[in-house]
Parts: sequence; structure tokens; C-alpha cells
Amino acid sequence: MSQDRFADALFTAVRDKGSAVVVGMDPDLSLIPRSYFPTPVPTTGVREAVAEGVLAFAGDVIQAVADVAVAIKPQLAYFERLGPPGLAAFEEVVRLARAEGLLVIADGKRNDIAQTAVQYAAAYLGVTPAESPSGSDSEAIVSSVDGEGPKADALTINPYLGWDGIRPFLAPGGHRGIFVLVKTSNPSSGELQDRALNSHREPAERVLDVVGGWLEEHCGQDTGNLGYGDVGAVVGATYPDELKRLRAAMPHVPFLIPGYGAQGGGAQDVADGFDEQGLGAVVNASRSILYAYARNGGTVSESARAAAVRMRDELRRVMDR
Amino acid sequence: MSQDRFADALFTAVRDKGSAVVVGMDPDLSLIPRSYFPTPVPTTGVREAVAEGVLAFAGDVIQAVADVAVAIKPQLAYFERLGPPGLAAFEEVVRLARAEGLLVIADGKRNDIAQTAVQYAAAYLGVTPAESPSGSDSEAIVSSVDGEGPKADALTINPYLGWDGIRPFLAPGGHRGIFVLVKTSNPSSGELQDRALNSHREPAERVLDVVGGWLEEHCGQDTGNLGYGDVGAVVGATYPDELKRLRAAMPHVPFLIPGYGAQGGGAQDVADGFDEQGLGAVVNASRSILYAYARNGGTVSESARAAAVRMRDELRRVMDR
Repeated sequence: MSQDRFADALFTAVRDKGSAVVVGMDPDLSLIPRSYFPTPVPTTGVREAVAEGVLAFAGDVIQAVADVAVAIKPQLAYFERLGPPGLAAFEEVVRLARAEGLLVIADGKRNDIAQTAVQYAAAYLGVTPAESPSGSDSEAIVSSVDGEGPKADALTINPYLGWDGIRPFLAPGGHRGIFVLVKTSNPSSGELQDRALNSHREPAERVLDVVGGWLEEHCGQDTGNLGYGDVGAVVGATYPDELKRLRAAMPHVPFLIPGYGAQGGGAQDVADGFDEQGLGAVVNASRSILYAYARNGGTVSESARAAAVRMRDELRRVMDR
Repeated sequence: MSQDRFADALFTAVRDKGSAVVVGMDPDLSLIPRSYFPTPVPTTGVREAVAEGVLAFAGDVIQAVADVAVAIKPQLAYFERLGPPGLAAFEEVVRLARAEGLLVIADGKRNDIAQTAVQYAAAYLGVTPAESPSGSDSEAIVSSVDGEGPKADALTINPYLGWDGIRPFLAPGGHRGIFVLVKTSNPSSGELQDRALNSHREPAERVLDVVGGWLEEHCGQDTGNLGYGDVGAVVGATYPDELKRLRAAMPHVPFLIPGYGAQGGGAQDVADGFDEQGLGAVVNASRSILYAYARNGGTVSESARAAAVRMRDELRRVMDR
């Protein structure tokens, strides 16, 4: 991680690479080529052996897309399924990506309150809020623990608990990023997020607007050199009208747009996520890049790179307006 | 885990032990006695050494409360802060608790969609929904991986993504439990959860009622021997009026009530969470039990046990009506 603020580092990379591509690292055991895993399946230490294969696969993809993408987005669930060796593989993926000049957005959708949220902030971002206890006998232990693992540049966060659940991730003077779920890409995202709240405002404020309002308020008061704050929003590619409306309502909030490719979103669907300079948003694709080999043939590396280049170029056409 | 459905196992334990106590396992490095950790702090392998201390501490508490509590609730954030060795300690805590006859509620507040949620369900509950891919070359690998780690009996879930984010955790014919956040115990929980939605209903439906409605609908169609389904609700002890109202609205939904003790909730505040038989709810306390030694003196074991016994007895008075 550079010393830059997160949003500055992210959008500087977008400008320098001419790319808004984020590669989602969702290592699905049923989609990774079988050759990455040992044959026969070992009878003990299966998770270690499988985690090694996942790491080799992730490493191949990371090297292949390093100059085409700006970031990877490891999906923690896939690593957690492999237990402790999976979390070790996640940490190694963070190191590999950083060595290749990629930013890392850990997709954990974490959420909790008070001291518990502080643990997540320390675990994934290395962020220690001012309110955490200090001066205790164990302070040396805590700082040694936090110094051992590599940290991500940003983490995804779920807002259901209210601002209490977001604040602990904002370090005083620190500039790691978070992306708060605002409008997710799944079919039932509207069951809560789209619902309008009773209010005296016209048109009535909806749940996603309430959450977006928190983010814009924070970012508007604390923007970096490129006009964006470090508290971003997740807004799915699958709802282009919402994306347009939210972009206008949240001019200082960086967007992470999932749902491109396999989930059905295309370049036109995400066009309104970008500002006039082609900044303000990055777009994630996971399966359509990782598993392009199955559709298009070629090696994992070649096919992932080709899919990332195609996505980069599709996005460039809508970024340059 | 017994072969019982989760809610049956939970409330049978409540009846047999005459206790609704859940001990939250929040191993805070700044509150655990310094003597559990090595002196001096090692220069490498800090997380391994600290995780060992956390495990020893958790083991002492688990043994001390085994016949007083019905379950432990490990808070994943604290384990994740220690990286891979922390996740290994979490797994060992699950094994220890089970060996002592306690159920395990993993508090991860996980949430995601589709195949990603499937990973969390497999990781923590060993649940594999019908919709997950099968028949692939990697099927043997997947089942070996899932067979290696111990699984919890229940997992907490965040509902912001809608029912899509909950469904993957419900195994067909499986009976692990989930507890969905409905009304959390923190001060800003109301920022979304309490807001009333625009609707034609009078009184207007609120966000927490929408989520609660999903759970009651599911549980009402699939109850166990004791009248409860396996899809529970988290409802904080700090909002007793909501608790009363939600209990009435969700008669088939098991409640997990956090916020007892250190967060300010007392026995009278949770009284309305129980049904007429004293079932339907379990109550979590973390700090007031784990760190009772700091307030009351004595060893960790003695003080944790005494605090758990006191809580059990306070709760008994409101359960027996």
C-alpha cells in the first residue's frame, strides 16, 4: 500500500493504467481446473493441499492481469471455506497482488459494533481507531499481532447496524478504504434496499438513499486530491438506473460496481458510474475472467488476460466521454 | 452436534439445564490476563503464540461454564484478527465446547449472495444447499475439504441483501441454525432497523418487521418438536419494548438476545423474550462473564463460573412465570 489515501491511490491507478478493471478472486473449487489440485486427493491435510492449489491458481491470474487491472477483490468466503490454510492463502494472495502493483479490496461484507468492529478493522485494514483501548499491559502484544499479517487496502462493509457499524473502520488520519453495501447486484436486493421510508420528503427517501447519504456526508467533508473520499459504495451493475441516480447523489463517493460479466451487467450498464474524467468508479468481474478458460479455451493465464483486456477496452469506451 | 434440529437441541438444553445462558467468546487481547501470553513477546510467530494463549483462556472459561450455559457464541472477528492461527484457535474452541456438551453459535454476521453465501454456509455450518454444483471432477475435493474442520451449530447472518442472502444457509433437510440480525443492541441500530417503510398498512411496517416477517413465515412452515423453527432472530436486550412486540409477532422464531450485562440489559429487560414455558430465547453475555475476574477478583475460571451462575439464576426468575 502506498502512503496515498485510498481513493487517490485507486483513481491514480485507473488513470495511469487506463483501466477500471477489478478482478474478483472467487476461487471456486468446482471451477478451478482439476490439475491445480493433487491426485489422488490426500487423506489428511486436504485443506492445506487444496489451499496450495488455490494459491497457485490465484497467482497465475494475478500475474496475467497485473498490468490490465487496478485491483483484485478476494472474496473471503472462498478462503474461509478452506479453514486456517485458506486464510493463509488469502494473506499470500494479498502479498502477491501487492508485489505486482495491484491494490487489494477484501470482500468480506463485515459488520459489527464497537470493539468487535475494531477487531475486523485491525484484522483486514490494520486500522486502529482512536477509541480502542491503549496503555494496557497487552499493548505490545496487540501491535505485534497486527504487524504480522499483510493488510488489504480496502474492505467491504454491511450497513444494517447503522453508522455505529461503519465508524470503527475509519481510522483517524488513516487512509485505508471501505466500500459500504448500498445497492447489491442480486435479484432480491430490493427487498430492503429499494423500499421507501416514511418521511416528509418528496420523493420519499429509500433505504439505499439513507445509506448513501451517510457516505456522501462523510466523503464530502474529507476528499482527497482527486475529489473522492475513502468511504465508498457498492452499487451493482445490474441496476443501471439506480447507478445513475446514486452517482449524481454521491459525487464524492468512490463506487465499486460488481455484477459485470457473469451476472449480466455490460459496459453500457456501468457507464453512468463514471464521472466526466472517467474516474469515480471501478468495476469488478470475477467468473468471466477467472474461468474464461472454460469458455474460450487456452491456459488460465492467457484466457484470464484476454478477458481482462476485453473488459478494460469495453469500459474505456464508456469512460472516455 | 446431535442429530436433532437446531432449535430442538437448543431448547432441550435450556430445559434440561434450567438455563438460557449463552457465553459470548470475545477474546479481547487487552482484557485477557497478561499471564496467558508469553513474556517477552516473541519476535516471530506472535500470532501463533497469542492464539495459544487465547485458546487456553477460552478453554478455562468453557470448562468453568459447561454445566451452567447452553452454548458459547465465539465472535469470529476476534479470531480473525489473529490470522490463520486465530482461525485454527476458533476451530479448537468449537471442538472443546462440543466435548463439554455445549452448542456453538458462530457470530460472524456473514452475508453474501448465491455461490458466495454457499461458501460461508459450507465453511461454518457444513451446509451444502441443493443448488450448489455437483457431479464435477472436483466433487471429491469439495467434500474432503468440508469434512476436515469442525462446524458450528448455528451462524449469525446479516439480512441487508434480502432473502437471497439468507436462503443459501438453509439446507434442504438439514437442521443447522441461523440467527438473522433483526434488532441489534447498539445505539445506532435504529438508523435503518427502526425506520418505517412507506406502505398502505397501518401502523406502517418497519424494516425490522419486514425482516422478522421473513423469519416467521419460514419458521411457521417448518417447526420442530418444541414449536420453533431453525431460522432465528437476533434481538438486543437493550430495547425491551421491541423485544416484547417482536416476540408476539414471531411466535415460531428462536431469539438470540445479546446485550446482557456489560451492554446494560438486565433480566427484566429480556423477560418478554421467553414464551410461557420459559423457552424461545437464549441470552448472551460476553464481557461480564469472560472478564468477571477483573471486577470481582478470583481466577478466570472461578469468576466466570460465578458470573454465569448469577446470570442463569437471574434469568430463571423471569423464565418461570
